[in-house]
Amino acid sequence: MASASKKTSACPHHGGSLPPPKLVSAAPDTVAVWSDADDQRASKVSLESVIRPVDSFPDNTAKKPANKGISVMPRTETKHPLDPLSAAEISVAVATVRAAGANPEVRDGMRFIEVASVEPDKQVVALADAYFFPPFQPSLLPRTKSGPVIPMKLPPRRARLVVYNQKSNETSVWIVALSEVHAVTRGGHHRGRVVSSQVIPDVQPPMDAAEYAECEAIVKDFPPFIEAMKRRGIEDMDLVMVDPWCVGYHSEADAPSRRLAKPLIYCRTDSDSPMENGYARPVEGIYVLVDMQNMVVIEFEDRKFVPLPPPDPLRNYTPGESRGGVDRSDVKPLQIIQPEGPSFRVRGYFVEWQKWNFRIGFTPREGLVIHSVAYVDGSRGRRPVAHRLSFVEMVVPYGDPNEPHYRKNAFDAGEDGLGKNAHSLKKGCDCLGSIKYFDAHFTNFTGGVETIENCVCLHEEDHGILWKHQDWRTGLAEVRRSRRLTVSFLCTVANYEYGFYWHFYQDGKIEAEVKLTGILSLGALQPGETRKYGTTIAPGLYAPVHQHFFIARMDMSVDCKPAEAFNQVVEVNVRVDERGENNVHNNAFYAEEKLLKSEAVAMRDCDPLSARHWIVRNTRTVNRTGQLTGYKLVPGSNCLPLARPEAKFLRRAAFLKHNLWVTRYAPDEKFPGGEFPNQNPRAGEGLATWVKQNRSLEESDVVLWYVFGITHVPRLEDWPVMPVEHIGFTLMPHGFFNCSPAVDVPPNPCELETKESEVKEVVAPKALQTGLLSKL
Amino acid sequence: MASASKKTSACPHHGGSLPPPKLVSAAPDTVAVWSDADDQRASKVSLESVIRPVDSFPDNTAKKPANKGISVMPRTETKHPLDPLSAAEISVAVATVRAAGANPEVRDGMRFIEVASVEPDKQVVALADAYFFPPFQPSLLPRTKSGPVIPMKLPPRRARLVVYNQKSNETSVWIVALSEVHAVTRGGHHRGRVVSSQVIPDVQPPMDAAEYAECEAIVKDFPPFIEAMKRRGIEDMDLVMVDPWCVGYHSEADAPSRRLAKPLIYCRTDSDSPMENGYARPVEGIYVLVDMQNMVVIEFEDRKFVPLPPPDPLRNYTPGESRGGVDRSDVKPLQIIQPEGPSFRVRGYFVEWQKWNFRIGFTPREGLVIHSVAYVDGSRGRRPVAHRLSFVEMVVPYGDPNEPHYRKNAFDAGEDGLGKNAHSLKKGCDCLGSIKYFDAHFTNFTGGVETIENCVCLHEEDHGILWKHQDWRTGLAEVRRSRRLTVSFLCTVANYEYGFYWHFYQDGKIEAEVKLTGILSLGALQPGETRKYGTTIAPGLYAPVHQHFFIARMDMSVDCKPAEAFNQVVEVNVRVDERGENNVHNNAFYAEEKLLKSEAVAMRDCDPLSARHWIVRNTRTVNRTGQLTGYKLVPGSNCLPLARPEAKFLRRAAFLKHNLWVTRYAPDEKFPGGEFPNQNPRAGEGLATWVKQNRSLEESDVVLWYVFGITHVPRLEDWPVMPVEHIGFTLMPHGFFNCSPAVDVPPNPCELETKESEVKEVVAPKALQTGLLSKL
Repeated sequence: MASASKKTSACPHHGGSLPPPKLVSAAPDTVAVWSDADDQRASKVSLESVIRPVDSFPDNTAKKPANKGISVMPRTETKHPLDPLSAAEISVAVATVRAAGANPEVRDGMRFIEVASVEPDKQVVALADAYFFPPFQPSLLPRTKSGPVIPMKLPPRRARLVVYNQKSNETSVWIVALSEVHAVTRGGHHRGRVVSSQVIPDVQPPMDAAEYAECEAIVKDFPPFIEAMKRRGIEDMDLVMVDPWCVGYHSEADAPSRRLAKPLIYCRTDSDSPMENGYARPVEGIYVLVDMQNMVVIEFEDRKFVPLPPPDPLRNYTPGESRGGVDRSDVKPLQIIQPEGPSFRVRGYFVEWQKWNFRIGFTPREGLVIHSVAYVDGSRGRRPVAHRLSFVEMVVPYGDPNEPHYRKNAFDAGEDGLGKNAHSLKKGCDCLGSIKYFDAHFTNFTGGVETIENCVCLHEEDHGILWKHQDWRTGLAEVRRSRRLTVSFLCTVANYEYGFYWHFYQDGKIEAEVKLTGILSLGALQPGETRKYGTTIAPGLYAPVHQHFFIARMDMSVDCKPAEAFNQVVEVNVRVDERGENNVHNNAFYAEEKLLKSEAVAMRDCDPLSARHWIVRNTRTVNRTGQLTGYKLVPGSNCLPLARPEAKFLRRAAFLKHNLWVTRYAPDEKFPGGEFPNQNPRAGEGLATWVKQNRSLEESDVVLWYVFGITHVPRLEDWPVMPVEHIGFTLMPHGFFNCSPAVDVPPNPCELETKESEVKEVVAPKALQTGLLSKL
Repeated sequence: MASASKKTSACPHHGGSLPPPKLVSAAPDTVAVWSDADDQRASKVSLESVIRPVDSFPDNTAKKPANKGISVMPRTETKHPLDPLSAAEISVAVATVRAAGANPEVRDGMRFIEVASVEPDKQVVALADAYFFPPFQPSLLPRTKSGPVIPMKLPPRRARLVVYNQKSNETSVWIVALSEVHAVTRGGHHRGRVVSSQVIPDVQPPMDAAEYAECEAIVKDFPPFIEAMKRRGIEDMDLVMVDPWCVGYHSEADAPSRRLAKPLIYCRTDSDSPMENGYARPVEGIYVLVDMQNMVVIEFEDRKFVPLPPPDPLRNYTPGESRGGVDRSDVKPLQIIQPEGPSFRVRGYFVEWQKWNFRIGFTPREGLVIHSVAYVDGSRGRRPVAHRLSFVEMVVPYGDPNEPHYRKNAFDAGEDGLGKNAHSLKKGCDCLGSIKYFDAHFTNFTGGVETIENCVCLHEEDHGILWKHQDWRTGLAEVRRSRRLTVSFLCTVANYEYGFYWHFYQDGKIEAEVKLTGILSLGALQPGETRKYGTTIAPGLYAPVHQHFFIARMDMSVDCKPAEAFNQVVEVNVRVDERGENNVHNNAFYAEEKLLKSEAVAMRDCDPLSARHWIVRNTRTVNRTGQLTGYKLVPGSNCLPLARPEAKFLRRAAFLKHNLWVTRYAPDEKFPGGEFPNQNPRAGEGLATWVKQNRSLEESDVVLWYVFGITHVPRLEDWPVMPVEHIGFTLMPHGFFNCSPAVDVPPNPCELETKESEVKEVVAPKALQTGLLSKL
């Protein structure tokens, strides 16, 4: 549904002969100005009152200015609006909120769950990118009749804090303007300015590691618990592990009026293994309900006696002797050497690599965020693909109807936080090659600032053959190797580890990959008991079947300049043609496209048999064959929830009911089950509710929510630590380029044919010296 | 369905305290002896008459003898029964057959389509592996009351030749014993011995590259063709490309009584590009039928005039200037260095790596074959997993009902040969790191011997994280990196390239991966014409939608010692539990197993919604939890044919109608559509016929035939050379091991935290010197 003015395109790899596109310059009459009264909804006032048009910009960019003739004003900004908060900013934000507490009791009760930067309106980001920060695109500055409009400065950065008050059990969201934060770094104690503060009724924010530790301590101190342990032969409480799990919402008793946890109990074997695997000995039958606000056990019942599984000799995973085993000694070193350094370039959080550029972000909830993804396409310049890519929720429902497994439905982002639980990565073991690490800064529960060093890893990988053709007539061949750029982070939520990877390819593909590893969540069985809901891993030790679901939120911007909302989504199914005269050979099939016109009809599921996929198209830009340019979402393997629709967790996770949702961008629609799924009593909050607005998607700023999962029937080989399983999907250019963007990747030097460079044949004990055999 | 005697097992990685299993030693009373009268079906005669039991073997293995106390006789064998034919053996086989030709005319007419070694009976392979060749397992030698039976020598290697007689149009299959082949290497001209020769009625063997070249020449010489070219403005016949395509079987006219081809015509643009892409200019509307036996055009019709598409400026793919483009200059070198060499060890075609061992084979039809796959599992010794893994067929049906696309249904193995069309790989571009290459030897059409150097590539790759767990309480973590061993080859069939990869992992996984690249098979359109059956790539240039199907044949031997046929296949579906008192939370689901009892009920399709997968189980061996040991086939993304059941190619490719077939091993059941799918008039030959025997699969030597495909809706970005698309599946241990076999992989040395080793931040033009920012 391409409308009037269509931008056509050349293919730069070819210095193509087609005319470069006209730059569409439509200056909005107004630009967003940030008064303190508003926080999220930036009020719009007339442009002239704030910034003045100039006819030229003084030039101080290192690179040739992107647009000749437009000189640039001296830049005053130091942090890009999308940069994660610095440690200093976090401490100012916390101090500001704490100081604003109504009274000492309120202030003392404040616990800081999440502090993240307020991602400003997209037009502010555009201004930043146009003038203050790379990619420096002054051509995209709004213009008036008298010329481009120069922003004197960007609106102050803001922090958004989710604060839980342990005294009042209230959850509040604060917005703090961080205009004068730098003072803090010179020792001064400075405040930001509270822009807004709002109590959010009837919610429980995510749990914090500090609460886990405190909960473990009070449960282990609880006399009836100590008794119950004794009844099971456990005397040494130091061996006991209490993993608090959120309670979900199964009935009124789980209402958010109380902050609750129902821990799972394990007991380590007394051994000197540094990482004795306590998960090998689940302690069943003990029901504990903890009031996490007051850190008090409020319900306790020793319901069922199940003997502790015997210490499994195969439970530990530390090197060699320390687990009672022997490690392999025949893994030879393999090094990845990049003698000239990596091919990427990093400026702050701005990354450039092989025509891609994007910004790295990080939030306590999502972890890694990829902002402003664009591809520099020769004469067509920087072509946006997506505003924002991230993983926004995970749900892991278990299939055993018995206590406690039925209530194990972790929302790892919404109940814990993927970013808050991220690892500090180590070069050589977590990552290989030339690595650029990014640290991440967080608030801890009591408002202190913590830094996870080397939290995000940026590195390149050789990925085998990119493309090849060999002419059968001449034997001549052209082959190219694929190099990919990988941005990743890893996190642990209790027993499980998840790695989140975004791979960028030279052929325009973006691959999202999740790696699952870590330790199975086990249960103990009565001697001789077996259950059809899982796999017996060792005597008395049982791993229930479960599913892992991941939700990627992709705010797309295919070929959209700032403020343009010219995208739509079409579903493609390959259909079998009717019998008849047009299909006399009965071989015919074709790709049928259907526009997803509005949100209510954009709840879709995968269908591998029709090769179903979805293309995000720009409604105003065409490729050289007159087709709208697009990027397609190609599912990998996927599934749907196996629990019945009435399962309680599906009230909070209604978004699992479909593999794809498409919404019209709205700044506060960030999390598929709403911002506070923990103990959420409201069924269908989030996507299931937003799409009832059935907003039109015919031409808008579309957000894809892709829900993908894996059904895990545990194996003995998943114990003691599960070898990585992979799952993911791909965003592929579909008519976005006029030809393969990888055609201009230069050939790798093929090494000379010297047989020496090859690996030598191992001479057998009695050398097999027949003439030809030595040729192998 | 475990029967009486169950072998239990320890987990070696742990020096586990469980007792080592009893070695089951059951010696067959007879051993196979090879009289010349029989070829495939080795006759069984009593053991004593051939080889004599000894109480000890003289020891001459390099390693400590696998079984103490059993010394080994001096070995006389130089080639393992599964080794591919050497060049000398091929030339002897060809010479022997040619000499056996009844008369000069018969001899002159002989054309040699395929020569491959006859893979002997599995018991011969077992003898070879027990005594003559690595893995040297004398314990597996058949035994009599008086002790182990020592084979004095193995039966002579044999060659199997598919010969097409250009004079008689007859196809014959010859078996030649190669007992005295070595004489040839000393200059003597020696014959093997014809064991059998059989004319195969009503078949056409695969085409040969020599026939393609000859066909192109006669068509280009054919006056009416030259006229038709002129009508289209083509004067220079050197620019014309004639790609012969097999005709399939659409009617009686395609019967194998004639050897036929219907070429597709293309015309290069006159340019000095070394690899001018002629596929960019399809010449439509010319119908040519060629008698390939007599190399004569027998039907010709210029049916439709479609102007040649204009030379597309984006059609070529050679480096930079030579294609009229500019290559990237910012891809920095990335080297993979293995200072101590690779971790694998190669002896002839026998490969050992990280407890895996297997033999590499190669045939003209299949290309790479992986034989005798086994895992050395500590105290349990060498545990077989599969007898033989290979890709045995490929079919690529097109979805456009128009001429010529409806008849484009290439059977790339059965009509051309994947091995015969393999590439000679180059280190640095095709492969990276420490590579071990294997050459492959073939006969050409006229019986000469040709060698493709560096045809199979064996190399290791770092594959990211293998497993990781971080204890949230202590922050302590254990992480291991994954190393995989990859065996691969690449081939070209006309315009398309396919790479076939078998990846072996340290966690017991085997991954089969196919990489698709090469050039789309295009058609030309009338000016302004569009077709729903494909994608317009450039003005007048159109790529029809199509599917690629691959068939992997996996003769499994999970935990089966030689001559044991103790496998069965169960299908696993994860089912939603009934509502009711056992499912009060409506969350319950469980893995349901169903034994595929016989071939007729083992025709199955993928079902991602039930996480369907198939486990090959040993019926007599259990793991430590009493479950039968197994390996499971886990599908990747897959599909089914979109053509209607009546489509003609499905007569020959009935095997595409299901994703999985399971048969009872039979030595002559090698190819899913029978050995000669080219112009095959017989519907349902191969799998669809074999399974009608409905042989029991309850406990047998099972062969899995996994059919997997991808539906390809072409994109502009697939032009001029398609960036690699990946598809595949995985064989995963499922209760085969008692715990993760990867737990004993040693940790990689984590590099010291020196920030220097990290990639430096690029200092922005105006250094952003706030205190904290420089931390990033």
